[in-house]
Amino acid sequence: MSDVDRLVGDVIAGDTRSLAKAISIVEAGSSEAGHILSRLAKHVRGRPVIGFSGPPGSGKSTLIGKFGEYLKGNGLKVAVLAIDPSSPFTGGAVLGDRVRMVSIASAPGVFIRSMATRGARGGVVAYVRSVLRVLDAAGFDFILVETAGAGQTDVSINDVADVVAIVVTPDMGDSIQAIKAGLLEIGDVYVVNKADDSRSSYIASMLEAMLSRGGAKPVVLKTVATRGEGVVELAETLLRKWEQLKTDGELQARRRRQTIAEVVALIMEDFRTAIERFSSDKEFIAEVERLTAEGLDPKSVAREMRSRVLEWVNRL
Amino acid sequence: MSDVDRLVGDVIAGDTRSLAKAISIVEAGSSEAGHILSRLAKHVRGRPVIGFSGPPGSGKSTLIGKFGEYLKGNGLKVAVLAIDPSSPFTGGAVLGDRVRMVSIASAPGVFIRSMATRGARGGVVAYVRSVLRVLDAAGFDFILVETAGAGQTDVSINDVADVVAIVVTPDMGDSIQAIKAGLLEIGDVYVVNKADDSRSSYIASMLEAMLSRGGAKPVVLKTVATRGEGVVELAETLLRKWEQLKTDGELQARRRRQTIAEVVALIMEDFRTAIERFSSDKEFIAEVERLTAEGLDPKSVAREMRSRVLEWVNRL
Repeated sequence: MSDVDRLVGDVIAGDTRSLAKAISIVEAGSSEAGHILSRLAKHVRGRPVIGFSGPPGSGKSTLIGKFGEYLKGNGLKVAVLAIDPSSPFTGGAVLGDRVRMVSIASAPGVFIRSMATRGARGGVVAYVRSVLRVLDAAGFDFILVETAGAGQTDVSINDVADVVAIVVTPDMGDSIQAIKAGLLEIGDVYVVNKADDSRSSYIASMLEAMLSRGGAKPVVLKTVATRGEGVVELAETLLRKWEQLKTDGELQARRRRQTIAEVVALIMEDFRTAIERFSSDKEFIAEVERLTAEGLDPKSVAREMRSRVLEWVNRL
Repeated sequence: MSDVDRLVGDVIAGDTRSLAKAISIVEAGSSEAGHILSRLAKHVRGRPVIGFSGPPGSGKSTLIGKFGEYLKGNGLKVAVLAIDPSSPFTGGAVLGDRVRMVSIASAPGVFIRSMATRGARGGVVAYVRSVLRVLDAAGFDFILVETAGAGQTDVSINDVADVVAIVVTPDMGDSIQAIKAGLLEIGDVYVVNKADDSRSSYIASMLEAMLSRGGAKPVVLKTVATRGEGVVELAETLLRKWEQLKTDGELQARRRRQTIAEVVALIMEDFRTAIERFSSDKEFIAEVERLTAEGLDPKSVAREMRSRVLEWVNRL
């Protein structure tokens, strides 16, 4: 029995340390990662992936924590994957938040994992989806994913989650500006968190007005995550939404679109890797210098040289 | 006379508004950009590009301001290109800094330009070098470039500047950590700014010890940029270094390396553009879905599909 077989067996058996190790290997993207993923493939069951996105400080992590508690209370095994670099899960936030999360982190049946993507130069969608497959194969009933929203992380929540909640706060200016600037991704549900703020009803109405399309109103809910208010309604809405998507075939369509995004990211990553690895070849450099010395501008040199890249990518 | 010809003529004649417009066009990377760059090519004289890099808050901008004043005082025309998103030049910093810079910004003979690169997904080296060529052709005697240092911006200062000053502060922990973590790029000169801090001599010694290679000591200078202390010595050291590099052929070697980096970035950019543009093609999507339905994993699908990308890039 190979080390990989043993690790995969332990992951499927629910061993948390093995799971953490398997994820680290998959994140690193080595050839071992490929072995792990292909051995886990037949154990992937396609369980719900619920995404939470929104600006830093909107309370996503607290909301996820409460959501996790709710699911756990219903006897479900929950994994949380935080891709937000400012998330308390990733250690980037204030102590208060981190303390709030401890009750979840240390509870049985909830596995929390953070992924650092800042500075990762692409292909993040593919890494995230690989990790999601590992979590699914490891037997979690629900996977909650947290991202910081467009422009803040290198992955769109819609590319990795089946159902998406966009979390904003009653701080009108920020939220409305974020929508106008296209900084909010497309949600199935919009959550006005910190709804004990007097402006929350106004913001909820604004969201409904701004996001209505052809008579169809968006789903806008209000929560006070710190006190757990509105969490059950949010959870039930998201789970109902997932079931509905599954019934009407939209879930399958979304996952196909995610696979397209993943394949595109992997292709991009192959080309990036090839270019980074082989552009230091002496022969390539000599050729670029020769063309430059002939008076060709860099753009034209690039055009001349780019056919090499396919040879490079096939050498990977 | 075409619009581009007129614009290029005005840039060479030293018209600041035309220069700003030309840079904006070049940054946008349209076909007009290519026309401008090729018409300006014969006016590029290869004047010194002096780079300043270092962590946010190290006082780079203030130092650049004083350096600019020094050069201006010697009758030289100076351009500043700030690629640091947290630079006061780019509007990201405290009022105090911005006020300090006004004397430079409004002075004749100093042109200040900022480039936003956060969120730019590559090719930044190429854009920066294009803008540097425009500035050179516009008749500036010196170009000062500011970046935030490795990991903070998408461009390495060594890829765009002839001579590089790395600016740190006496805050020991941060500076030493930055060096150890490889966050400091390679400098010709290391500057301990805010040297009125009692720890500055210790930090200077540490830098000398840590950066010595084979008996060769690094050049470490101390400045108090806010009071202009040490600025003349720094300026003279950097200019002497540039002359020396020019004499011994190293300047030409560095610029050749920069051109390689630029060409590589342009090739990468072509592939990225092609993949982003054509991966939404119906035919491509249908093929990916067919392969996925056959049970191929995303990595294998990506491998099957990547040969298309060269066709795509040739269609650009």
